[in-house]
Amino acid sequence: MFTTAFSPRFYETDAFGHVNNTVVTGWFETAREPIFRIFTPDMDIKALSMILARVEVDYVAQIHYGSEVTVNTGIEKIGNSSFTVWHEAFQKGVVVARGRAVQVHFDFAGQKSSPLPEHLRLALEQHLSPV
Amino acid sequence: MFTTAFSPRFYETDAFGHVNNTVVTGWFETAREPIFRIFTPDMDIKALSMILARVEVDYVAQIHYGSEVTVNTGIEKIGNSSFTVWHEAFQKGVVVARGRAVQVHFDFAGQKSSPLPEHLRLALEQHLSPV
Amino acid sequence: MFTTAFSPRFYETDAFGHVNNTVVTGWFETAREPIFRIFTPDMDIKALSMILARVEVDYVAQIHYGSEVTVNTGIEKIGNSSFTVWHEAFQKGVVVARGRAVQVHFDFAGQKSSPLPEHLRLALEQHLSPV
Amino acid sequence: MFTTAFSPRFYETDAFGHVNNTVVTGWFETAREPIFRIFTPDMDIKALSMILARVEVDYVAQIHYGSEVTVNTGIEKIGNSSFTVWHEAFQKGVVVARGRAVQVHFDFAGQKSSPLPEHLRLALEQHLSPV
Repeated sequence: MFTTAFSPRFYETDAFGHVNNTVVTGWFETAREPIFRIFTPDMDIKALSMILARVEVDYVAQIHYGSEVTVNTGIEKIGNSSFTVWHEAFQKGVVVARGRAVQVHFDFAGQKSSPLPEHLRLALEQHLSPV
Repeated sequence: MFTTAFSPRFYETDAFGHVNNTVVTGWFETAREPIFRIFTPDMDIKALSMILARVEVDYVAQIHYGSEVTVNTGIEKIGNSSFTVWHEAFQKGVVVARGRAVQVHFDFAGQKSSPLPEHLRLALEQHLSPV
Repeated sequence: MFTTAFSPRFYETDAFGHVNNTVVTGWFETAREPIFRIFTPDMDIKALSMILARVEVDYVAQIHYGSEVTVNTGIEKIGNSSFTVWHEAFQKGVVVARGRAVQVHFDFAGQKSSPLPEHLRLALEQHLSPV
Repeated sequence: MFTTAFSPRFYETDAFGHVNNTVVTGWFETAREPIFRIFTPDMDIKALSMILARVEVDYVAQIHYGSEVTVNTGIEKIGNSSFTVWHEAFQKGVVVARGRAVQVHFDFAGQKSSPLPEHLRLALEQHLSPV
């Protein structure tokens, strides 16, 4: 499981006075960066053979400006060419959002999904954990 | 059904050279603004008694900078205090993303969901349409 | 002079209840897109031999959610390898922000600024206009 | 002087492959949060009697994804009702951006600028430092 901390930024709030919902998808993408590094350890974007196929977010509670948000991230399941990531965000010890992302190993040259090679599958398996 | 057009902005692209996935949740929120106006015709945010409970987005194809994206939006179903909105985004006639949002009629004073009053339910029903 | 219209998006507001100041730099970048097209008519980003060297924004009045913002944009002066763009944003007929951007013709291969070729200089001159 | 660290997020990059320029104004706003806390120690936004009047950013070098950016922030000068903040951003020991922000002590009820009270002036003076 990976843990990433976010200090809500003022420009991430909206007129309701809380963090805007669209920000959470950005935080979750950022929380997946340790997984991106499995694909490209030196963060060479051109070598990141992966696309995002789907996201889901459940907004459980309002996220407030002024206190840190912690996002836990793990891998829920691994398919042939895709895998599902889960996220859970906490603020002051309370769950504020949950999410999922389906990432697909992708062949950009052929513009199609591509089976996960064994070394990536093994690396991803080490982060399998229940939601 | 509502239709909203977006010209991808340069800062909405990412290092993959396409529109970043997080931007789509923002466009979909914007595409729901005609629905927000049902709740508060003069866009008085303090009167917008609604929260977002859940979003889902399926990224179907890469979204390119330089040509317009059209988002169709309708209401899929209406519950007691919540309703589900669907979105479908097209670029050059091709579906590029689909999504759903669950909005909840909310009593901010009591910090709990609240049954949709009859006039709002009737107004929402006029926009019921299949995905 | 170019004119670009923006409908403030809900996620562009902040907890003060108005459009966040950082959004304006994004709108101004978007308002410069007709100028980008002078450099690359088909919006091929790889062919956009230009970098942004400097921005200035004066926030003159609060920008409200719910009514359109119009941004006027022109070219203030043209140097050897750079040029200065001005912006003026209006909402309900009132100036809400003014800005400037200094763009530099750039040789990405050599990683240095590069004199504006004559055909680009002539094209830019057609949009010279006082602030 | 305040120092704030930022890990560039993937969605903060643009199609040029670097961090988009508009992101820097957001980082600088975030780097001013310790100054906001002088005005409202418990980050109560309603008590933040301050507006942003002007920003300037000089983009000195490309900001890359994958390595941390450090922003140094200090107060350059203090006027009757306003003060000027400076920022300097570094990546791998190299200056990548410099900026200024003019913040104005503001009376939201009267919708006009308001002289800095003595206790705020004294608190701000402790962070005066040359650019």
